[in-house]
Amino acid sequence: MPQPAVILLTGFEPFGGEAINPSWEVARALDGELVAGSRVVARELPCRFGAAGEAMRQLVAELRPVCVLALGQASGRADFSIERVAINVDDARIPDNGGAQPIDEPVVAEGPAGYFATLPIKAMVAGLRAEGLPASVSQTAGTFVCNHVFYSLMHSLRQHPDVRAGFMHLPLLPAQASRHPGLPCMPLPLMIEGVRQSLHIAATHHGRDTVQAEGQVA
Amino acid sequence: MPQPAVILLTGFEPFGGEAINPSWEVARALDGELVAGSRVVARELPCRFGAAGEAMRQLVAELRPVCVLALGQASGRADFSIERVAINVDDARIPDNGGAQPIDEPVVAEGPAGYFATLPIKAMVAGLRAEGLPASVSQTAGTFVCNHVFYSLMHSLRQHPDVRAGFMHLPLLPAQASRHPGLPCMPLPLMIEGVRQSLHIAATHHGRDTVQAEGQVA
Amino acid sequence: MPQPAVILLTGFEPFGGEAINPSWEVARALDGELVAGSRVVARELPCRFGAAGEAMRQLVAELRPVCVLALGQASGRADFSIERVAINVDDARIPDNGGAQPIDEPVVAEGPAGYFATLPIKAMVAGLRAEGLPASVSQTAGTFVCNHVFYSLMHSLRQHPDVRAGFMHLPLLPAQASRHPGLPCMPLPLMIEGVRQSLHIAATHHGRDTVQAEGQVA
Amino acid sequence: MPQPAVILLTGFEPFGGEAINPSWEVARALDGELVAGSRVVARELPCRFGAAGEAMRQLVAELRPVCVLALGQASGRADFSIERVAINVDDARIPDNGGAQPIDEPVVAEGPAGYFATLPIKAMVAGLRAEGLPASVSQTAGTFVCNHVFYSLMHSLRQHPDVRAGFMHLPLLPAQASRHPGLPCMPLPLMIEGVRQSLHIAATHHGRDTVQAEGQVA
Repeated sequence: MPQPAVILLTGFEPFGGEAINPSWEVARALDGELVAGSRVVARELPCRFGAAGEAMRQLVAELRPVCVLALGQASGRADFSIERVAINVDDARIPDNGGAQPIDEPVVAEGPAGYFATLPIKAMVAGLRAEGLPASVSQTAGTFVCNHVFYSLMHSLRQHPDVRAGFMHLPLLPAQASRHPGLPCMPLPLMIEGVRQSLHIAATHHGRDTVQAEGQVA
Repeated sequence: MPQPAVILLTGFEPFGGEAINPSWEVARALDGELVAGSRVVARELPCRFGAAGEAMRQLVAELRPVCVLALGQASGRADFSIERVAINVDDARIPDNGGAQPIDEPVVAEGPAGYFATLPIKAMVAGLRAEGLPASVSQTAGTFVCNHVFYSLMHSLRQHPDVRAGFMHLPLLPAQASRHPGLPCMPLPLMIEGVRQSLHIAATHHGRDTVQAEGQVA
Repeated sequence: MPQPAVILLTGFEPFGGEAINPSWEVARALDGELVAGSRVVARELPCRFGAAGEAMRQLVAELRPVCVLALGQASGRADFSIERVAINVDDARIPDNGGAQPIDEPVVAEGPAGYFATLPIKAMVAGLRAEGLPASVSQTAGTFVCNHVFYSLMHSLRQHPDVRAGFMHLPLLPAQASRHPGLPCMPLPLMIEGVRQSLHIAATHHGRDTVQAEGQVA
Repeated sequence: MPQPAVILLTGFEPFGGEAINPSWEVARALDGELVAGSRVVARELPCRFGAAGEAMRQLVAELRPVCVLALGQASGRADFSIERVAINVDDARIPDNGGAQPIDEPVVAEGPAGYFATLPIKAMVAGLRAEGLPASVSQTAGTFVCNHVFYSLMHSLRQHPDVRAGFMHLPLLPAQASRHPGLPCMPLPLMIEGVRQSLHIAATHHGRDTVQAEGQVA
């Protein structure tokens, strides 16, 4: 019997003084699930420049996924925030978990300035909203380890445009927000449901992405 | 057998183009529950100046509650937002559900400028956070029907300082936020849990409120 | 020859790690000016609970102004922010300049919960906007020394409803904002012009305040 | 006598219901000025997809500038907001001035996903702040005509890495913000001063850009 195709779903270890990272909690909750006939394989990434990108490249080489969704935590964001573009720069406001704080260094030397996600990001946003789940397209994944992993992922797949890959930021969990008054949050079951739906859309949407304005004036 | 004491919990009908109001969804979910030996009685209020305040006054007179928590929807807020003070003014940016749009009219003619909540608001915030639930003290309940009801409530209890009463704003539900990209939300089960906890703290906290800074510089 | 009537204009000393406070810079720039036939008298207040309120009471008693505008700095606000209501509570997130950090103490023991400004706040907002200056009504002056002074001012004038009095928050100056990336600012000349216009409106607007919705839903 | 080198400074015509665009007001105020020995040449661009990019390409070809700064209006931003990266996508939330509303179309067919500004953006931010002017690096120029022009500019200079080029967003003017309560603004003289300083830094900073963290976690 043939093995099902693999959907790689990554999350990060905690960082920035937090004891938990919702991205990994969501990923591991979905590990092993079948989504549209494909098997979700969840992996945790270190929150370290270099090591995280390298881990992603190895996972892609090893697992040969048909779809990759990397998840990350975005303190201050309120919804399923699907990234449009990864850029070739590390510019860290705070040190990563290994103490490194690169400033204006490329993720990949000689790599292009940016890569667009190859996920159907508009279809994902539209599909989540149709289920009553809050979602939006983000025009920047920042310049920290999340963007680093996103760029590394897209670079490693640059010869494989058929593999749908991209990045989604998640809000804080309620327990995290309880220590940062005023910041939005989302409980874990809702996150899991939204990511499950997102993977389903990513795996089943065919052809060109949905045409729906999700841009930003400035 | 004596009847248990009554905790009055109110919510509003939908307004502002919404088909649902989380405040009433939460209230009705808790209707009839026993909290620290008291019975929760849930009632829905109209989103209309005048009528909502009158309804609140009648409920207080009829039910003689030992505790009152009025709930309202606050688009844009992210947590359990416990109001500190009600002010004696109606100033409506949008018409209420009856088409009225009072501007700079008193809630109660000749009433004082403001009333403080008599709930242990700091203990409630501290208690919610200790359970991993996001909460904060708000310094303004606005000038729409929520503040109108809050002021009417406190005015009707001005001779009964032993009755603990106040107002809590809730975020949008996820399905509402899915139509207002970028706004924070909270799913109903989490809202219900937080309000249940809040009622428990309000009903069981004795003596002076917890001393914990929750102010705002400006 | 009779002395012109007095308009009292106060500002604060710097606080919160700043070397300058725009509120005092504006006040002193207008000291001595004639506005609609009245003389502006500028005074600097300490950023200390108790002392600032006491200083305000003494200034009112000594100068017998026909109009009082107290100015304060509001990091994060973007326009001429005219306060609607002062509340009877000190709740300090940070220590004041004397190291005091009162929590949930009344500004005036046995004082009422709140006082409304007696300035024509809607006329001021409308007038400023008509001159192309950004302005809004604020529903909370916070719970720090600004609110403390505002409440003290209104309490000291409670028997003199004919004296128009209130509070306006100002944004940071550009040099301050240059050290707090992302926060709005306003240069001093624009602030001075807006406060001058505000005093003119406050001194010349007669009868009931302009009726214009400037409320907040929540 | 040799002609001085040219610094091209562009601004946009008004859009989005505004009667004025600060970007062009600033540019035309600096037209003809000498900055570090170079001549500022100001040009107004249409707020139209396609036409604006084409105009920029022609200006670069015609004027052969040593430095290009394109300016744009960013409602909601508070400071001199220097863009890091242009991306190859048009995604318009609102129609442009010609009624076009492209969604997910490339700025340049077959162009790379992104281009980094070649201005010394960190030195510019640091230099502005040192003068007490509020400035920051922005990680996204949006997906409207501003990004379209920025991308077109960088694409037209892709073979000329010696030409320093980039984009800066400016806040609303006070008169604009007076009609959009709560939005930050900056008066024209301050904008002019900040752009003048920026051009000076761009023209005189040599070698590698200043190393200073201005990144964003997410």
